[in-house]
Amino acid sequence: MTNYKPKSRLTAQAYIDGVLSGDRVILSRAITIIESNLESDKLLAKAIIQAILPASGNSIRIGITGVPGVGKSTFIEVFGKHLITQGHKVAILSIDPSSQRSRGSILGDKTRMEALSNLENAYIRPSASGTTLGGVANKTAESMLLCEAAGYDVVLVETVGVGQSETAVHGMTDFFLLLMLAGAGDELQGIKKGIMEMADMVVINKADGDNVRNSEMARLQYQNALHIFPQSDSGWEPVVTKASSTKNTGISTVWDAITKYKQLVTENGYFIKNRNHQKIRWMYNNINEELKRMFYGNKDIASKLSVLEKDIIASEISPVKAAENIIEKFKDFNKT
Amino acid sequence: MTNYKPKSRLTAQAYIDGVLSGDRVILSRAITIIESNLESDKLLAKAIIQAILPASGNSIRIGITGVPGVGKSTFIEVFGKHLITQGHKVAILSIDPSSQRSRGSILGDKTRMEALSNLENAYIRPSASGTTLGGVANKTAESMLLCEAAGYDVVLVETVGVGQSETAVHGMTDFFLLLMLAGAGDELQGIKKGIMEMADMVVINKADGDNVRNSEMARLQYQNALHIFPQSDSGWEPVVTKASSTKNTGISTVWDAITKYKQLVTENGYFIKNRNHQKIRWMYNNINEELKRMFYGNKDIASKLSVLEKDIIASEISPVKAAENIIEKFKDFNKT
Repeated sequence: MTNYKPKSRLTAQAYIDGVLSGDRVILSRAITIIESNLESDKLLAKAIIQAILPASGNSIRIGITGVPGVGKSTFIEVFGKHLITQGHKVAILSIDPSSQRSRGSILGDKTRMEALSNLENAYIRPSASGTTLGGVANKTAESMLLCEAAGYDVVLVETVGVGQSETAVHGMTDFFLLLMLAGAGDELQGIKKGIMEMADMVVINKADGDNVRNSEMARLQYQNALHIFPQSDSGWEPVVTKASSTKNTGISTVWDAITKYKQLVTENGYFIKNRNHQKIRWMYNNINEELKRMFYGNKDIASKLSVLEKDIIASEISPVKAAENIIEKFKDFNKT
Repeated sequence: MTNYKPKSRLTAQAYIDGVLSGDRVILSRAITIIESNLESDKLLAKAIIQAILPASGNSIRIGITGVPGVGKSTFIEVFGKHLITQGHKVAILSIDPSSQRSRGSILGDKTRMEALSNLENAYIRPSASGTTLGGVANKTAESMLLCEAAGYDVVLVETVGVGQSETAVHGMTDFFLLLMLAGAGDELQGIKKGIMEMADMVVINKADGDNVRNSEMARLQYQNALHIFPQSDSGWEPVVTKASSTKNTGISTVWDAITKYKQLVTENGYFIKNRNHQKIRWMYNNINEELKRMFYGNKDIASKLSVLEKDIIASEISPVKAAENIIEKFKDFNKT
């Protein structure tokens, strides 16, 4: 990626035809257009997305999270190979808003998934970069549509497991998988509140060797805990299993659960309902982010806000009045 | 409430003096000003809030939630009386955005808390009404400041336990208490995802008679489940206890836990940090709501959005492009 130089662009039609025919090189170049911040590329990206839209959606979208050290890359590699053996085409994307801030990007080190990336029916793409989570999530979600249009019927969206990107991934996938380790305690502190409740499945990873017994105990503990929590609108009871990516055990169980889930939510109508809901919310998220950008992107507003924050903490102004004052200022700016 | 007719208004100074001297009648009338939607009252409200602001904040703010039927009113009555016996002044507010939609308001039936409301050191106020949760939450939070300025050192903020009002209550209180019933299963479905994780304490209520054994089992189950979940930034480990409001058991345990919590978070600095964070977020919530109102309150925007929603579901336009289109429209409106 570091040596990447933009090649001359193709026509929109060339990208569209290439993606629809499943050409991996063209798919990569089309995703580069999606990720580009050049104005001319943005127009091109819109034309491509608009054209491939009807061909998108024919996949199961699986979000995968877990704290660093849980073994996500190895799990995805083994899981991906399993799916390809079953005849699937697997695309692997990721959301990591931190990657450009050099906190270490996921999937950046492609060699970690070399065996998988060499397979014809696998497509691996590192996280887009961007200044905002919303921007990165947009690019990943649009890349997902391109992958689907290119014939990938399983899309795995990986997240780093330490921030808010889980919510973004949960909002664009059908099934949410949380990787955990036995031995609970401190490792868990990395998992933010609310993430556990999004999980459709918890996999206790690295359940091998001396760790098998602890993993089974952890599995039971999580299973009991999840029973207590409220059921999802999908009607699905979250499943807890254990797996070992290195010993290749428990991997087929994960796919079996996802297959069962897909069947349940297709039959009860939740699958399409959730997809539609996600699409609509995607529009509203973009609108709301743009509204905020119009306001908070204003330099005068930004400097006034930092003064107001200090006054609020000093109890010199009420938060409600502070908000009113600054909105009035904003309206005045827009008038002039 | 139904026979309420506005009395002639006092001067701002009369409200301020009355509140600061702890006059319950003036406090009630000042809160009525806060809740009023008349433009003249809004100006008066701002003057009152601004003046009492430095005298606010000297309380422990306790959010209380639980599904209907869990026995919230009875618990609050018994808990409130316990606190008053200990020498505290207790204000009881509530957030129920549904109350005006006649889905049955909480605290509306004051007779439910008659014994408490007759005590001199108790102040009970039913939920403000309003069209938006944000609006109702604003009024409740400002009423809370008035109660504190009037000398109430414990503020209980009750919520109905079926919607998003829990997040609003959590965002304005220091300690969040979740009432539950033994027998788990179906009753729990009323508790929304994420609420359990906000709880600093879970009280298994109605732990009396034949229910004691089940309540103890439920207590252990919840205690185990909460251990698995990530720790709060406060450094506090959520506590699970059982109580009976009718038998008056377990009530002092609740207050003991809150006292311990207060001590912990005062010492580790979380108390003031969280209060400041809440105040700042309160301003931003108000700004963001107003930005949305400016946009979504526009009739042309609203009708275009419903068309775009249909087009998105039909895959005729991408959510990102739909958002861009409507934002452009909005900018055009504002120019003309």
